[in-house]
Amino acid sequence: MTSAVRGWNRLREHNPLIGFVDACLRGPAQVVFQNNPVSGLLILAALAWGAVEQGQPRVFGGAVLGLVVGTVTALVLRVDLDSWRKGLYGFSPVLTGLAVPTFLDDRPLMWLYLVLGAAATTVVTLALNAVFQTWGLTAFTMPFVLTTWVLLLGAYQFDRFTVLTGTTPKFPGEGPVAGGRFDWDLVPTFLRGVSQVFLINSWVAGLLILAALLLNSRASAAFAVLGTVGATLLALWFGADGASLDKGLYGFNAVLTAIAVGAVLHRPGALVTAYTLFGIALTLFVQVALATVLTPLAVPVLTGPFNIATWLLLLPRRHFGPLPDRARIRETVVSAVKRTIRPYAEER
Amino acid sequence: MTSAVRGWNRLREHNPLIGFVDACLRGPAQVVFQNNPVSGLLILAALAWGAVEQGQPRVFGGAVLGLVVGTVTALVLRVDLDSWRKGLYGFSPVLTGLAVPTFLDDRPLMWLYLVLGAAATTVVTLALNAVFQTWGLTAFTMPFVLTTWVLLLGAYQFDRFTVLTGTTPKFPGEGPVAGGRFDWDLVPTFLRGVSQVFLINSWVAGLLILAALLLNSRASAAFAVLGTVGATLLALWFGADGASLDKGLYGFNAVLTAIAVGAVLHRPGALVTAYTLFGIALTLFVQVALATVLTPLAVPVLTGPFNIATWLLLLPRRHFGPLPDRARIRETVVSAVKRTIRPYAEER
Amino acid sequence: MTSAVRGWNRLREHNPLIGFVDACLRGPAQVVFQNNPVSGLLILAALAWGAVEQGQPRVFGGAVLGLVVGTVTALVLRVDLDSWRKGLYGFSPVLTGLAVPTFLDDRPLMWLYLVLGAAATTVVTLALNAVFQTWGLTAFTMPFVLTTWVLLLGAYQFDRFTVLTGTTPKFPGEGPVAGGRFDWDLVPTFLRGVSQVFLINSWVAGLLILAALLLNSRASAAFAVLGTVGATLLALWFGADGASLDKGLYGFNAVLTAIAVGAVLHRPGALVTAYTLFGIALTLFVQVALATVLTPLAVPVLTGPFNIATWLLLLPRRHFGPLPDRARIRETVVSAVKRTIRPYAEER
Repeated sequence: MTSAVRGWNRLREHNPLIGFVDACLRGPAQVVFQNNPVSGLLILAALAWGAVEQGQPRVFGGAVLGLVVGTVTALVLRVDLDSWRKGLYGFSPVLTGLAVPTFLDDRPLMWLYLVLGAAATTVVTLALNAVFQTWGLTAFTMPFVLTTWVLLLGAYQFDRFTVLTGTTPKFPGEGPVAGGRFDWDLVPTFLRGVSQVFLINSWVAGLLILAALLLNSRASAAFAVLGTVGATLLALWFGADGASLDKGLYGFNAVLTAIAVGAVLHRPGALVTAYTLFGIALTLFVQVALATVLTPLAVPVLTGPFNIATWLLLLPRRHFGPLPDRARIRETVVSAVKRTIRPYAEER
Repeated sequence: MTSAVRGWNRLREHNPLIGFVDACLRGPAQVVFQNNPVSGLLILAALAWGAVEQGQPRVFGGAVLGLVVGTVTALVLRVDLDSWRKGLYGFSPVLTGLAVPTFLDDRPLMWLYLVLGAAATTVVTLALNAVFQTWGLTAFTMPFVLTTWVLLLGAYQFDRFTVLTGTTPKFPGEGPVAGGRFDWDLVPTFLRGVSQVFLINSWVAGLLILAALLLNSRASAAFAVLGTVGATLLALWFGADGASLDKGLYGFNAVLTAIAVGAVLHRPGALVTAYTLFGIALTLFVQVALATVLTPLAVPVLTGPFNIATWLLLLPRRHFGPLPDRARIRETVVSAVKRTIRPYAEER
Repeated sequence: MTSAVRGWNRLREHNPLIGFVDACLRGPAQVVFQNNPVSGLLILAALAWGAVEQGQPRVFGGAVLGLVVGTVTALVLRVDLDSWRKGLYGFSPVLTGLAVPTFLDDRPLMWLYLVLGAAATTVVTLALNAVFQTWGLTAFTMPFVLTTWVLLLGAYQFDRFTVLTGTTPKFPGEGPVAGGRFDWDLVPTFLRGVSQVFLINSWVAGLLILAALLLNSRASAAFAVLGTVGATLLALWFGADGASLDKGLYGFNAVLTAIAVGAVLHRPGALVTAYTLFGIALTLFVQVALATVLTPLAVPVLTGPFNIATWLLLLPRRHFGPLPDRARIRETVVSAVKRTIRPYAEER
């Protein structure tokens, strides 16, 4: 631990305001499973860059507002302070704060909607965590997904909002899928797959987010790359829509699954990497299926596919009982083989 | 306890038939969280009035039939008798009994459909209660919602039923939302928001239902009013559909959330009232979102939004651990502050 | 136990390869809740016959491939070997293997899709079993249903797949329902109701599957017949679509519910048979409702309705507490009656 880190940690423990800023900074980093305020700051910089590059600086404002409102709501609701300090009540609201100004038109009421939505995201986080702890899981970013779906779907019924998802409700399969076009200049697409985790379409932002990952965990950065490359190439092979491919929209859910399953929630290893590759494919399939389901409603899948796929990949672990211990497996196999062989031996 | 109540209670304990009538009467009252047969009787009177006013007396017949079938089914399935006596197996079937003749055309087969539906409502109540008790919750009126959705959605596939939901399947956002028009004569709308809890569009019925609430619990009546007024005004502000507003359709889910969260399931207080106001907004958002999701299927949201919002609002409570006790909070805060200050003191 | 059975059991215990074949054979039998490799073999014969009769022999190839891939995946994931030996990790993948070549056009990539889907079915089985064990239930065939929905819905987004569900996305209620036409020649329809459990439209296959049931459990065969006859006649009465009726599409879900609720998961009896008849109606209602929900997406209901209805029918059992014991019920009733009568006696 460098002396700068030690100094900051002393500061945040002594000064409630610095403590609050620290918890807020960890929020964006926790989206990609990192508990590090500097990573969070770097990601906020990436979001600022991306929002300005897209010509929508209000999206960055929404991110900061959502982050602060969600984190404050958690304090008001007296959540567990240890989790709060790790930024675990900031990562879903920051995404809600990014999504609302991205998908609704800019008017004063939108900001009230965003504030209510960010507060609701924290309530939903508490609610879903209570449900998922039954199976040793957490809600991941599903509170952001559910809250944002509710806000966007609800906006259809309000005269004073306009939904800007870039598409209109239609039946799935209407009009042919464009089909992916292989393009040797895929690197920016891969990087946009990383930035789309935060609903940003910018390879520069993707690069900054990768740097934020690298800063805290090399394995996380490596698996993030594996996720965006793997899912994008698979989508390209199967002939997914070219325009969506180009924006990195087939990469971002797999980025999150790959970091979670490959680097954070299992001890890395060969078997875990194989399982992660399978998980990347599963995430892509869940994503395209969910995209079809949502076509008549014209709302985006957000990070729903990552949540669903990762729950499906993690739930069986409980089923395995205690973590696979080599010695124990060998013992089991040997005794099984012995049981298989013994009767022959006895017969003889 | 008046001598009349004492006499009735003695009667219902001694005479199984009176006991059955008592359990049935408590059913409609339990829809609005009241355990009182006189409130139930008053609500039945409200339903009779409303059904006749709407020119659909069969809707009242359906309510009584559903109530009786559901309550008998619970007996046949040997449910817990304590809950049964409180009317907890009557409140969902009475709603199913109201919904089927409201949304399907009048023909003999409809009544068989209603009887099977009311029995199914009781089975679904037992099933969902078993699931929700995992998190210290009950199914509320979701068994009615799910069963009625199944009956209405299923009716599309049967030649011998016609679905009369007043709308046809279409994409959300087709045709502009009319927008609410502010109208100083809002009181009847607020009252219709109360009667719509029972799918009745009548301010007189709403008034009678408020009286039934007042009879048993002033807090419940007050929060019912808060719910219908709050949600209706919020919907008006955001520009919701004027025709639905006028019928009280943006009020009834919030009425139930407000009674549940504000008056029944928490000890009333300032913080709880603030949380209830937030809950009223949450219920409205969930309702308009669900309305969008159901637009391509042309079935109504029923009381689904109340159930979803109230579960979301109640689930975090478990997360808080033991109920917020003032002394304990103060102690926590004081010790936190001390921990924050001490190091400075020690440093000096 | 005949000596042939004894010989086979010794073989499968001693020879891992025979053990694997035995586990695979039990897979198709477990779809209809039978733990018997000969029943499984007979069902595979039925599937081969049906696939050839339909002119789609690749469907049988898909079944075998799915079965093997799913069973191997379970081994790789180190599942509980006792369950594995009973074929409990083969019954969902065999259905996924039948569904993919039935609903997607024949091309090399489809087989890769099938292999990934069969492996995913096993992962989803482990995941859902972990969830449902909370309530003393298992996932039944829902892993097949969810995985196949994901594969079919996802295929809409891929240029290189064509979905062949025989229908296109549309709004429910568009075009009048044809209505069932009563036909004294209903027996083949009933039998197709049995074969449709395996997505096969052939009365000969249905007869073979009934034989496979009869071989292992007379009660299962009887309830399978009750399921297909009951649901088909009810659908006919209510005026369901004639073409679907004829293919046995209203029978197969009820076949599974009837076997599960009537013959396998309860001790058979008069009350259980009454509950099963109710369950058959419930399954039909859930099926037509789900068909309406899926109309805008043009994917089939598969065995989803059986799973949902059977969970709803089984969940309340936990609520009943210990299994209904006659002596205990009599005691409860007698004491209740005594409590009712005593006060009168005392008053006199």
